[in-house]
Amino acid sequence: MSLTFQEAYQDLRHIYDQTRQAASVPFTLRDAERALAALLTTDNLWEAIRLSHVPLRALSTFWHQLIKAGLLKAHDGALRLTESGQALTQALGVAPLREATCAHCEGRGVDYRTLPEGVAERFAEIARHRPEAIQAYDQGFVTDATTLSRIAFAWHRGDLEGKAIIVLGDDDLMSIAAALTGAPAHILAIDIDERLIQFINEVARQEGLDRLEAVRYDLREPLPTAWLRRFDTFLTDPTESFLGFKTTIERGLLALRGPGSAGYFGLTHVESSYEKWAQIQRFLLDHGAVLTDLIDDFSAYVNWGYIESMRSWEWLPTHSLPERAWYYSALHRIELLRTPDLDNTAVEGDIFSDAEAATT
Amino acid sequence: MSLTFQEAYQDLRHIYDQTRQAASVPFTLRDAERALAALLTTDNLWEAIRLSHVPLRALSTFWHQLIKAGLLKAHDGALRLTESGQALTQALGVAPLREATCAHCEGRGVDYRTLPEGVAERFAEIARHRPEAIQAYDQGFVTDATTLSRIAFAWHRGDLEGKAIIVLGDDDLMSIAAALTGAPAHILAIDIDERLIQFINEVARQEGLDRLEAVRYDLREPLPTAWLRRFDTFLTDPTESFLGFKTTIERGLLALRGPGSAGYFGLTHVESSYEKWAQIQRFLLDHGAVLTDLIDDFSAYVNWGYIESMRSWEWLPTHSLPERAWYYSALHRIELLRTPDLDNTAVEGDIFSDAEAATT
Repeated sequence: MSLTFQEAYQDLRHIYDQTRQAASVPFTLRDAERALAALLTTDNLWEAIRLSHVPLRALSTFWHQLIKAGLLKAHDGALRLTESGQALTQALGVAPLREATCAHCEGRGVDYRTLPEGVAERFAEIARHRPEAIQAYDQGFVTDATTLSRIAFAWHRGDLEGKAIIVLGDDDLMSIAAALTGAPAHILAIDIDERLIQFINEVARQEGLDRLEAVRYDLREPLPTAWLRRFDTFLTDPTESFLGFKTTIERGLLALRGPGSAGYFGLTHVESSYEKWAQIQRFLLDHGAVLTDLIDDFSAYVNWGYIESMRSWEWLPTHSLPERAWYYSALHRIELLRTPDLDNTAVEGDIFSDAEAATT
Repeated sequence: MSLTFQEAYQDLRHIYDQTRQAASVPFTLRDAERALAALLTTDNLWEAIRLSHVPLRALSTFWHQLIKAGLLKAHDGALRLTESGQALTQALGVAPLREATCAHCEGRGVDYRTLPEGVAERFAEIARHRPEAIQAYDQGFVTDATTLSRIAFAWHRGDLEGKAIIVLGDDDLMSIAAALTGAPAHILAIDIDERLIQFINEVARQEGLDRLEAVRYDLREPLPTAWLRRFDTFLTDPTESFLGFKTTIERGLLALRGPGSAGYFGLTHVESSYEKWAQIQRFLLDHGAVLTDLIDDFSAYVNWGYIESMRSWEWLPTHSLPERAWYYSALHRIELLRTPDLDNTAVEGDIFSDAEAATT
């Protein structure tokens, strides 16, 4: 059973090459190492996804190749390395993951308990009655602590108080949390989902949040002239196909006044490789935006009702419903150094899906 | 005294233009807003620097212009907006800063108390005897909590255990903290300062850290062949002139094995504008590196002994020694997606200074 590093590396390299062939999405040897490290750390499938930080399209293919090679067994929602699998990781020198996340702020660095008294409680009470996440719009909302922490973070960065804010797609109810602080000058939430528009406007009326309004809008349409260059801050949590992501961010950039304005968005590992992250970073720089903050695993998503019908369900080697949060995203903040040169045109085609998309 | 927004904006714009003329470094209207917000939040000069997130070269020029316009008074280490200054900020709608930093992890998101028992205590005991920071090498070291948190973070990301690590410039003693965990396969610390080399090698001997070694090396020289493409992880906290920064990162990238390898570095606001940040982000992407984490204000620096002889001392409108940490840097992690195409040649000229440099 005792392998040399060279033998183990050749075995891994073979499985890696097969994974690359089978899944036509970016996948690196470091991704393979991360996936093995996660399997040394947990036998829960959803925990393994969370810890791997590898796109699910590639990760599930890698798991299938490990199973085929007799290195992994999948059963009843559990993934267990076999003796040969253990021997391989040992010979490769792969170490289990050692999380160092701060328990108090769940790794965010900001503490939403610094928000004015009552905001968190009022938000939780309102959010209890929110519309359910639906697959047609690739919805899936974050925990209350996440939404509140995003607002606390934006306030800390000077992007909330006295500012005009636009929220592009708001199943996370960020517009409501922002309005409850009383700090922004004005908040506009836009969404394609009529249920959310009604919900936010009804909350605004009932809670007396007169600086908050919600308007139905499909991001594929050009941004209405009244919203062009009118906002100091955009907040969004885009769908992650590159086209969907790019379209959402472009609308956000078009809504900003210009240099000095800021934008916030989330980006995951589940649906986006570091290759896609790099592509997005270049896109942002090319449009005059500098990345000022990037806090991974900032946003934790509440498990949505359509897990079993998402496209990645059938990729999984074993099936059970997740019992804890497993889908996380990294919070990004950008600041404009220049006015971006962008067209405000309609976008055609499927903005919800690309090769790495997992939840649509 | 009551100004309209338009009048206030014209006043600010005038002061802003004069600042731009007087200081030939990047400075944005958003920087001016941040500087005013800081002045609404504290009257302590060093706290104002910390909160502004604006390069000190531009910030101090802006303060002088505010003083000239009768909007600010500087006295005995305190900066106070005059009545006209208060009226201006009010008319502009500038809000005081509202920090939301998690008190438990000091905003880092990682908790160094997750390190194995005894590491923090042993490190603190060792670091008590470290060589003092000297100006000739632009030194200034971070708090023990910062060094330990960087190591906890690298472990969490899978860049420590079983890995070969190079530390480029180590007045923060990261190599010692890494070695104390017992996790890395090998750690090489390189520095120009003979005192640090002796100190680290002496600690390695006394503490029985046989995987740790320190070697004297001047970053301006080509990287020795024995270190080329030999490491999984580099850690560094570069001097921030663009040339100095670029040289340090290039040596780090040359030391990495290739795709999947990771690098960590710090970058400040005190000495680097967002314009320079963007320039650095593009440089990294161009060399095949993706930015995976960017946690601002992660690193807190212990006040060094040469405050009064640093070049920025004479820029300040009033003088007193800082009583708390005021110089912070943002922790960046990159991961290589491609092998960078870089020359390993000697670098000529002043790597410690550029127009924004403040501490040399």
